[in-house]
Amino acid sequence: MLMAAADQIFGASGKKIRPALVFLVSHATAQLTGLSEITPQHRKLAEIIEMIHTASLIHDDVLDDSDKRRGKETVNRVFGTRVAVLAGDFIFAQTSWLLANLENLEVIKLISQVIKDFASGEIKQTTSLYDCDITMQDYLRKSYCKTASLVAASAKGAAIFSGTSNEVKENMYDYGKKLGLAFQIVDDILDFTRSSEQLGKPAGSDLRKGNVTAPVIYALEKQPALKRLIQTEFINPEDLDTAIELVHQSGGIERARELARNMGDSALDCLSCLQKGPMRSSLEGMVDYVLERLH
Amino acid sequence: MLMAAADQIFGASGKKIRPALVFLVSHATAQLTGLSEITPQHRKLAEIIEMIHTASLIHDDVLDDSDKRRGKETVNRVFGTRVAVLAGDFIFAQTSWLLANLENLEVIKLISQVIKDFASGEIKQTTSLYDCDITMQDYLRKSYCKTASLVAASAKGAAIFSGTSNEVKENMYDYGKKLGLAFQIVDDILDFTRSSEQLGKPAGSDLRKGNVTAPVIYALEKQPALKRLIQTEFINPEDLDTAIELVHQSGGIERARELARNMGDSALDCLSCLQKGPMRSSLEGMVDYVLERLH
Repeated sequence: MLMAAADQIFGASGKKIRPALVFLVSHATAQLTGLSEITPQHRKLAEIIEMIHTASLIHDDVLDDSDKRRGKETVNRVFGTRVAVLAGDFIFAQTSWLLANLENLEVIKLISQVIKDFASGEIKQTTSLYDCDITMQDYLRKSYCKTASLVAASAKGAAIFSGTSNEVKENMYDYGKKLGLAFQIVDDILDFTRSSEQLGKPAGSDLRKGNVTAPVIYALEKQPALKRLIQTEFINPEDLDTAIELVHQSGGIERARELARNMGDSALDCLSCLQKGPMRSSLEGMVDYVLERLH
Repeated sequence: MLMAAADQIFGASGKKIRPALVFLVSHATAQLTGLSEITPQHRKLAEIIEMIHTASLIHDDVLDDSDKRRGKETVNRVFGTRVAVLAGDFIFAQTSWLLANLENLEVIKLISQVIKDFASGEIKQTTSLYDCDITMQDYLRKSYCKTASLVAASAKGAAIFSGTSNEVKENMYDYGKKLGLAFQIVDDILDFTRSSEQLGKPAGSDLRKGNVTAPVIYALEKQPALKRLIQTEFINPEDLDTAIELVHQSGGIERARELARNMGDSALDCLSCLQKGPMRSSLEGMVDYVLERLH
């Protein structure tokens, strides 16, 4: 049953953006330190990162009681809460063992901070549902914990295994952080602009659950009526549609797009420490890939 | 709510046998290596071990859908599955970070194996419910994963921070392993011999859930009628009481007691590498403490 649960989530067509990032940064930084190719540690890191991401999705879906993920039914929906908790714990346990056996304290500390950020992010999210006083800074901090921390650690971890200077490590961390934030902002925009079929879950479902994201924070500045709809948790059947309409009218989506593009530009700035060539171009391309989803 | 959840479980009167063990082995092994006192790492290890134990109990109670723990209501009963999953994840995340920051690869690897064993133990238990073909070896392996692995790592981890020889480390590991197995066997006996009030949960509840433990494995050799009652999952209201009665009549409880005592004796043998004195005596006393619960 656990294997079937693993199939359920690993078999869904995830974008695998995190392991791709590990491989690209591994290659790009290996060039800087004169490694002729990437190491087994780099490859194992890519595995570990995707496993951590997947385990966190399984538990997130339990916490949010979600039915759909990547267009397929969630593990908790198909197999129940018990199996989902156990499957998540099992994958986390495997990653903690794999990570320990990479025998690099700097990377172990880096990833342990990510796991802590995940838990903080979930708590921040849970305690700020339907909260219209959340600031952009709160939102970015929450998005950092939930998403960008792992992406940043993916990039920095790859640089560590290449043995780069601290300056390069920190640039890779910042690149991953900005890329992860851009990714989260785009994701939060798509909740308003894509159809349910495109999303693989109902449109507006983040807002319905009370997640106040970038487009909503901007919209609240212009549309005070939105606040009441959120605070009363969309008590009337038409309230959610009204709220989505207000977000569209407010220009909040355009401002959130601008924010995502600025994050993308900041990410690109961090790449100047790398050699020009196909690896650096591909890392630039990842920023385009994340922002392209806006079109 | 998370603090209240933490209070719910940390506030219940746990025996705190694991941190006590860490402190005793820390003192006993520090004497061997000439440390004048135990180190901050020893103390932090005691904290981490109790936190890991507590996090695993919270998730176990979700997996088993348990209502009572240590005589109090479980976190999942009071706060629901969501908070219990999140609280467990949060505590696990904290321990992984605290552990990484102890900066000792040997201890990190040791504890990461325990986390993996926990997950394996839960899976072994889940997949062997109501299975009357389970052998004593299966049972001991499962008990090792669920209980003894953490106790063994507690003792060995303390020896590592004292800087002892590998021989002492392995003796401490074996001591903890045998002590942990004795503890689990005793726990499984008490499920049959103590009243519901003494246990803080209904008597016979392990068997009712399908856990085939040491007294039952012995009883199955003598009482073939027991097999049908277990395999039909106590379908009639009186089946559980009949099964408990059969276990008592079979002499399985006495044989399980004997097994626990043998484990206790093996644990004592591992202590001969330590200096005689109050610390070694207290570690011997822990074996008595575990076995005393049989009376």
